[in-house]
Amino acid sequence: MAVEPFDVVDLIRTKRDGGTLSTPQIDWLIDAYTRGYVADEQMSAMAMAIFLNGMARPEIRDLTLAMIASGERLDFSGLSKPTVDKHSTGGVGDKITLPLAPLVASFGVAVPQLSGRGLGHTGGTLDKLESIPGWRAKLSNEEFLAQLEGVGGVICAAGSGLAPADGKLYALRDTTGTVECIPLIASSIMSKKIAEGTAALVLDVKFGSGAFLQDPARSRELAETMVQLGTDAGVATVALLTNMNVPLGLAIGNANEVRESVEVLAGGGPADVVELTVALAREMLALAGQPDADVEAALRDGRAMDTWRAMIAAQGGDPDAGLPQPAETHTVVADRDGVLVEQQALPFGIAAWRLGAGRARKEDPVDHAAGIDLHAKPGDAVTKGQPLFTLGASDAARFERALEALDGAYRIGEAGDEVSDGGPLIAGRVTAE
Amino acid sequence: MAVEPFDVVDLIRTKRDGGTLSTPQIDWLIDAYTRGYVADEQMSAMAMAIFLNGMARPEIRDLTLAMIASGERLDFSGLSKPTVDKHSTGGVGDKITLPLAPLVASFGVAVPQLSGRGLGHTGGTLDKLESIPGWRAKLSNEEFLAQLEGVGGVICAAGSGLAPADGKLYALRDTTGTVECIPLIASSIMSKKIAEGTAALVLDVKFGSGAFLQDPARSRELAETMVQLGTDAGVATVALLTNMNVPLGLAIGNANEVRESVEVLAGGGPADVVELTVALAREMLALAGQPDADVEAALRDGRAMDTWRAMIAAQGGDPDAGLPQPAETHTVVADRDGVLVEQQALPFGIAAWRLGAGRARKEDPVDHAAGIDLHAKPGDAVTKGQPLFTLGASDAARFERALEALDGAYRIGEAGDEVSDGGPLIAGRVTAE
Repeated sequence: MAVEPFDVVDLIRTKRDGGTLSTPQIDWLIDAYTRGYVADEQMSAMAMAIFLNGMARPEIRDLTLAMIASGERLDFSGLSKPTVDKHSTGGVGDKITLPLAPLVASFGVAVPQLSGRGLGHTGGTLDKLESIPGWRAKLSNEEFLAQLEGVGGVICAAGSGLAPADGKLYALRDTTGTVECIPLIASSIMSKKIAEGTAALVLDVKFGSGAFLQDPARSRELAETMVQLGTDAGVATVALLTNMNVPLGLAIGNANEVRESVEVLAGGGPADVVELTVALAREMLALAGQPDADVEAALRDGRAMDTWRAMIAAQGGDPDAGLPQPAETHTVVADRDGVLVEQQALPFGIAAWRLGAGRARKEDPVDHAAGIDLHAKPGDAVTKGQPLFTLGASDAARFERALEALDGAYRIGEAGDEVSDGGPLIAGRVTAE
Repeated sequence: MAVEPFDVVDLIRTKRDGGTLSTPQIDWLIDAYTRGYVADEQMSAMAMAIFLNGMARPEIRDLTLAMIASGERLDFSGLSKPTVDKHSTGGVGDKITLPLAPLVASFGVAVPQLSGRGLGHTGGTLDKLESIPGWRAKLSNEEFLAQLEGVGGVICAAGSGLAPADGKLYALRDTTGTVECIPLIASSIMSKKIAEGTAALVLDVKFGSGAFLQDPARSRELAETMVQLGTDAGVATVALLTNMNVPLGLAIGNANEVRESVEVLAGGGPADVVELTVALAREMLALAGQPDADVEAALRDGRAMDTWRAMIAAQGGDPDAGLPQPAETHTVVADRDGVLVEQQALPFGIAAWRLGAGRARKEDPVDHAAGIDLHAKPGDAVTKGQPLFTLGASDAARFERALEALDGAYRIGEAGDEVSDGGPLIAGRVTAE
């Protein structure tokens, strides 16, 4: 048996007592965890110590690099196009990847979107796309590279070969109450993105009630940490800080979010979804060397839609197929005249989850037809009896607990009342110093 | 499947964020952990959160009661004698249980000493007694009760039936860096003692370099917490705060500690071991209704020795058998004339452990012959060439790493230099308010 250079209990105690872990200590910890020498219960104690005592920037960098080193790295240098990726920290109704990837790819840029599935109240991009009959999330590395070179945009499942240590740690954090921690979030996201091999990366870092980190200041800290990690690793990285106090768009679910995305690609769609899609596309195209690209034109003239259709077809999906509809619906109407002044993202996310759009455990299936369609957004005038939102599910028995989640989650005020939406959609931008 | 009333991740987050767990939450947590519904990695995250954020007194009480409820409770009410137990938080050279149990039992008191094995630098009472040929640690409940009623004193292994949740949590804490935590130490010790059914309990709570908690103020807090837990549960409880900056007595190991204990029972032995044995015996006898017992007389006149011999024989041991001696020894001598002004407990404990007297993993055996014999104590005048201590092991190759541990652990100063021993042996006494 090889002699291990460190004792994991010593390392846990160091972090527990507010100390700093060295580069060789972090390298060893992640390697030993990946090969199973460090046990889950030891890593979860370490994660809680990191959660409560934090990590210095060099420790976060070391953790990210160690997780990258735990697996393979992809290489896009053989492509004829520049690559640029985007990552969102996740929110309610956040389907931006769906219109964004084909939009950017329509400018001749390769957009590799290795995506995940939803867990809890935030949806997963792969779950949404699986609403489309025939579409498959899993590609081989060869298929992935060929689609990037050809169509340009790929949204597919991340293979287990990239940063496997992160995959293991991420699953552990989910069950041990150690998710909302900047060093762990930043290293988790950036290890996968750097290992993936993208040349450039735009981050959509959410704040507000429906985000992992509610506090805008902490979201900014997360964004700054990730931008520095990317920049240090040679990935041109920019972040937008965006508001997740209100659901994004009018659809929360899976199939209905695909439907809304297609509206955006057809030149329509809700104003907030269009605004964020366009802003992120501009950032991505600027990093890919096209700072003056006319993004809106590609939505208007069908170029983005053509790329979307090619992307879906390349992965076996039928872009013209009908999408699943819920068997049961329940519409909630305004109980008086006034203005919708509040619509909180988190309860709407939880309600959609309870309707079946999300999963409580990794192994659960999702109901692609389930979800919520909003008929009004904060600031809209409403009249008594007007539909506010419609719940959809395969079983009407699910409505009760979804409605419980929505109790107090929206409010009709008087004309002139302040609208409680947490301010503008795009609140800031973070670049490397 | 029964519906679980709580979500363990919610409870971890509550403690992580500095909140307080309710009685039903703690009851459920410990029950769910005992039956395996709450996983080790979840409990270790919880333990780290408790370590860093603490627990309020009612939470510690609830945790203790929940661990008691996880298993069986013994009942000594059928005995014709009063029962009084003693627990030490553990230290270097701490063999006090060996002379103390027969000494107190010789006054017609039942002394149930459910003991453990050593791990790391602190020795285990059972390991020491197993130096005696034939002696066995494991008794059935019936044998245990019969020996208590007859001989009066029993030192044996705690069955796995008492507070099994604590057994599981204790093993977990050891590998996850969550040992030195007052709520977890107090609930661990007191759950076993209360479940055991003793009517009275004397605690020897150590502070100093060789103790779990080095800081006297934290040791006092631990003592106060445990005295309150015992008192609230109807167990008359008193604690002494004792100094563990210097090894206790002259023997550190297993067989040599038994030898030293027998010297004390024969009316001799090192002054510090005698002082602490007598002080603890007085406390125990006072709780058993004999506040004026002449403890020293029982050591002088052989009554304590008679009870010792009966205790050893009752468990299959031969009190007259020779004890193992180390095959190899190495003696360190004074390099100059002067006064021994320092002799640090922790390095001597680690050195004895490295010689083979202790174990690194629960499944390892111990070497009963290995250990250290001290020839001088702090404050003693020494002359150049005079033996300071002798290392013993089965293999001379072990001396090097043991001597490394002792580098800087002792110091010879000038006559008149201050002796660095952390003050008096017995530094305080804690009783219920």
